[in-house]
Amino acid sequence: MPDAKKAVVLLSGGLDSATCVAIAQQQGFDVHALSFRYGQRHSVELQAAKRVASHQQITEHKVIDIDLRAFGGSALTADIDVPKDRDCEDAADIPVTYVPARNTIFMSFALAYAEVIGAHDIFIGVNALDYSGYPDCRPEYIGAYEMMANLATRAGVEDSDRLNIQTPLIALTKAQIIKLGRKHGVDYGLTVSCYDPDKKGAACGHCDSCQLRSKGFADAGVPDPTWYQKDVKS
Amino acid sequence: MPDAKKAVVLLSGGLDSATCVAIAQQQGFDVHALSFRYGQRHSVELQAAKRVASHQQITEHKVIDIDLRAFGGSALTADIDVPKDRDCEDAADIPVTYVPARNTIFMSFALAYAEVIGAHDIFIGVNALDYSGYPDCRPEYIGAYEMMANLATRAGVEDSDRLNIQTPLIALTKAQIIKLGRKHGVDYGLTVSCYDPDKKGAACGHCDSCQLRSKGFADAGVPDPTWYQKDVKS
Repeated sequence: MPDAKKAVVLLSGGLDSATCVAIAQQQGFDVHALSFRYGQRHSVELQAAKRVASHQQITEHKVIDIDLRAFGGSALTADIDVPKDRDCEDAADIPVTYVPARNTIFMSFALAYAEVIGAHDIFIGVNALDYSGYPDCRPEYIGAYEMMANLATRAGVEDSDRLNIQTPLIALTKAQIIKLGRKHGVDYGLTVSCYDPDKKGAACGHCDSCQLRSKGFADAGVPDPTWYQKDVKS
Repeated sequence: MPDAKKAVVLLSGGLDSATCVAIAQQQGFDVHALSFRYGQRHSVELQAAKRVASHQQITEHKVIDIDLRAFGGSALTADIDVPKDRDCEDAADIPVTYVPARNTIFMSFALAYAEVIGAHDIFIGVNALDYSGYPDCRPEYIGAYEMMANLATRAGVEDSDRLNIQTPLIALTKAQIIKLGRKHGVDYGLTVSCYDPDKKGAACGHCDSCQLRSKGFADAGVPDPTWYQKDVKS
């Protein structure tokens, strides 16, 4: 039997990326996950990433240190308050939780990883429906990244194996993502989505990410396994 | 008088990037340079980057730590010998000094930096004539990166200021680069190009980079200020 094809999956430890891991595995990929300690205020998500990697029995999980606090410019990487109870439907507005060029940086490391291990598929759990209006979650951005990636590496020069940026969640609602993940065995109780959790990882319940997540579970009609801080109604 | 326009310049500490800094300044840009401690065997180049930044009196110089040894796959970031006395004219062959996705990673950090400081120009000293055949030095790659970058960030959504990836050296020979830099006051004695220098920064004289550099000075008809290791004829 030939070895399974390898894929690099960006794993933040949140709901979307955990679902991405399950989808890649379902498609028969041997998953090599990549997470980043980038100076994020919600670095407890890395513990979630480790739990997901272990539960979903992936082949390899690398955590890379990069200091995006060197640039700042975001509520996630600088001393700027995370907005609470914002109207997430207003997608024309890019919120202060946007981290400049974050997905571009993450995918560039994934590209390096993929090239070294011989993977031709990179999975990223971006979503352009129930999202916060970040420019680097849009399909046109992903398409341009893929085109660039195919010129950036050895593969673009020496052989004909295209590199694919796979975004299986991009056109799904949060509720659809949750239903799909549950079907493929994702344990969402292991994941952390909150931008502003307490030190133990309990979710604030009020940031964009908590709101989108909580609405997703409600719309999907399944119990929300999120561990909320004491004052939040679950 | 309005403030000068800001540019981010990728500064390795080598000949090309030092020239890029001078060109950006010549064009009236306020230069914010970015260097990387990425696990390169020739990390003495960072001392050169600091010397260049100081000599050319740039506004800001950030050095970012990223560990590309986590992936390896290159003679510059893994325990693989740097090839010596290779025929650099054979550009069809991608040598083992190629670092997977390195320029893509570097430019992605530059993109974050540019977005945070409000710069619309990123300079990178890639060169597609006297080079080692790396895929991420080619004009088609740079064009695709620029297109992606303009979709990746706030600028692509909220305003019409295009982001430019400037590659002023891409079509120049090494000799032309050296002549241009000297005209603009670059002190090449401060720069380090060697892939395999000794601990003090003296150049090996035999790697691709040393060969291209040394031929460049010879072709330009100017003295080579490179500090070579003892056994190398200068």
